[in-house]
Amino acid sequence: MGPHPAVAAIRLAVRRVLHDVLTEYDRHTDKTGRAEFAEAGAGARRSALPERPDTPLVLVACSGGADSMALASALAFEARKLAVRAGGITVDHNLQPGSALRAAEVVTRLGYMDLDPVEAVAVHVGREGGPEAAARDARYAALDAAAERHGAAAVLLGHTRDDQAETVLLGLARGSGIRSLSGMAAASGPAGRYRRPFLQLDRQTARKACLVQALPVWDDPHNIDPAYTRSRLRHEGLPALEKALGKGVVEALARTAQLSRDDADALDTWAAEADLSVRDDAGQLECAKLHMLPPAVRRRVLRRALIEAGAPAGSLFARHIEEVDRLITGWRGQRAINLPGRVEAQRQGGRLVIRQSCSASG
Amino acid sequence: MGPHPAVAAIRLAVRRVLHDVLTEYDRHTDKTGRAEFAEAGAGARRSALPERPDTPLVLVACSGGADSMALASALAFEARKLAVRAGGITVDHNLQPGSALRAAEVVTRLGYMDLDPVEAVAVHVGREGGPEAAARDARYAALDAAAERHGAAAVLLGHTRDDQAETVLLGLARGSGIRSLSGMAAASGPAGRYRRPFLQLDRQTARKACLVQALPVWDDPHNIDPAYTRSRLRHEGLPALEKALGKGVVEALARTAQLSRDDADALDTWAAEADLSVRDDAGQLECAKLHMLPPAVRRRVLRRALIEAGAPAGSLFARHIEEVDRLITGWRGQRAINLPGRVEAQRQGGRLVIRQSCSASG
Repeated sequence: MGPHPAVAAIRLAVRRVLHDVLTEYDRHTDKTGRAEFAEAGAGARRSALPERPDTPLVLVACSGGADSMALASALAFEARKLAVRAGGITVDHNLQPGSALRAAEVVTRLGYMDLDPVEAVAVHVGREGGPEAAARDARYAALDAAAERHGAAAVLLGHTRDDQAETVLLGLARGSGIRSLSGMAAASGPAGRYRRPFLQLDRQTARKACLVQALPVWDDPHNIDPAYTRSRLRHEGLPALEKALGKGVVEALARTAQLSRDDADALDTWAAEADLSVRDDAGQLECAKLHMLPPAVRRRVLRRALIEAGAPAGSLFARHIEEVDRLITGWRGQRAINLPGRVEAQRQGGRLVIRQSCSASG
Repeated sequence: MGPHPAVAAIRLAVRRVLHDVLTEYDRHTDKTGRAEFAEAGAGARRSALPERPDTPLVLVACSGGADSMALASALAFEARKLAVRAGGITVDHNLQPGSALRAAEVVTRLGYMDLDPVEAVAVHVGREGGPEAAARDARYAALDAAAERHGAAAVLLGHTRDDQAETVLLGLARGSGIRSLSGMAAASGPAGRYRRPFLQLDRQTARKACLVQALPVWDDPHNIDPAYTRSRLRHEGLPALEKALGKGVVEALARTAQLSRDDADALDTWAAEADLSVRDDAGQLECAKLHMLPPAVRRRVLRRALIEAGAPAGSLFARHIEEVDRLITGWRGQRAINLPGRVEAQRQGGRLVIRQSCSASG
């Protein structure tokens, strides 16, 4: 009898990602010794570890919640069968009483799964960008540092299809176009370090896999705290949408993410190519040529140019781009437009001149 | 003292659209007589009407609800100032008791606004595609016929920004990509006949404009009937989303519609061009060339080819395209793929062969 379907599902998801990680690792290292190493098995593994390992280390980021606990269990299982070393990191955000104790428990549990190295990292969460963004920034900084310290080839994250659906809705609320609808990537971060094996899997499957494997699960009280946007979305927004639109909403949102990501990538490629064709010999943007581009491409060329001139990407909104676009499509002698990062755009002699002013008062 | 801000807003929205309609009408007709005609004023208008009119006729589709009643009032007001004839159509769907009486009341009210011609059209609503789709199909068929009969240059529809937001969410629930997120166009139908002046205006403004102009408003009970998806979305889904994500959701969804539409248009253009470059001399699709296209463009090329071969666009889902795409990107000797409309796709000698089988059993 095979494993429970939920356990089979989480293992398959992890196995696929590990195969990708191995394939990429092989491209960058000498393959010699890999096969023997794998055959020697888990017992010989640690002692046989060479200075520059033939086998990649894959870490799992584990909060102790159902998603990442299921992920850790699947990684431990699959790593035993492949030439992969598996370890785990838990981040103590220091935001709730008892968080250090919980981190210690997670470390114990991951060690018990035979993951090695296993580490708890305490971080200080600032305030920038709101509580959720600040916690996320601190967490990724800690994970990046841990990945560097241990020389990890990949860090697995437990985000599920439900998390993806929530992320798409959060992006939708920004109304800033299809890039913000594309949710989380299956691989992201430096050299695609972060991998999300569960992005096609629902939260329920992860929880079920913990249940049937008798894994203890910690439910973060923040996840049900209505002070957090994502929590409100999860417990009120999405259920109401499902009630109105039917059960397939989460799946539809996740599919929207993937399609939007591909579309946004293609349009970015086009914009990068178009950028070369709309400039004169001095490298200035020619308004007549910009005018002939499809609006979607022109807006992206303009956005690129503004960022290149020093406008911070995060402060550049659709309305900024639209205003600059009207210098091209609705020219009636407008004055220079002031943009974030002291960037200025104006039309001069058929050229769009974009530059950063030297002083804040300028 | 000017009009109430809500009234000013609806009039401005209509004025902009009428200007566009006039500009386009001028391109297609002799302009002679236009100015004199406008100066002669509303009284002389009807008697002076030539056989082939110098002034375009603009109809408003009016259900008697707040949105379209506000639209009718703004059209009546603005048409008096421009060289535009204005009329109104109300569609009696025959779905509710008293619908004929209501249609008659709307006709009376529109006539009182000095719209001419004014007409009630009774339709029979079938069952195809569900109650909402069937009512919509019957309505547009009636409006198309009325527009032809009266030689109307445009038919104004009262869809607001709130309707647009709902349409985006309905598209999102399909999960079929950014085209379905692009909502309703500001101009659609044969020769862009249907115009939606209120697409940037919220429902509240239209209702307020009716209130301050003492216009009676009919609230369609279907709009609050939870049997209808759109009604559930309006009264439960969207409010819950707003509660979770904040007040700007409707605006963000409407902006998403516009951005998605432009993006989808650009990618369709790209796909049409790419289509020409990925075929061999015999017009067959070459797998190696398809493979080099960005996934977003390749999927659109495949979709085009499938539709061209006879697959009905409405039955082609993302999963169909993905399966065909795997013949290109994940080739491992798959068999022919059966698609809607008896269309078959298979890979043969580096070519993607797409054809419709002659018999249902074939």
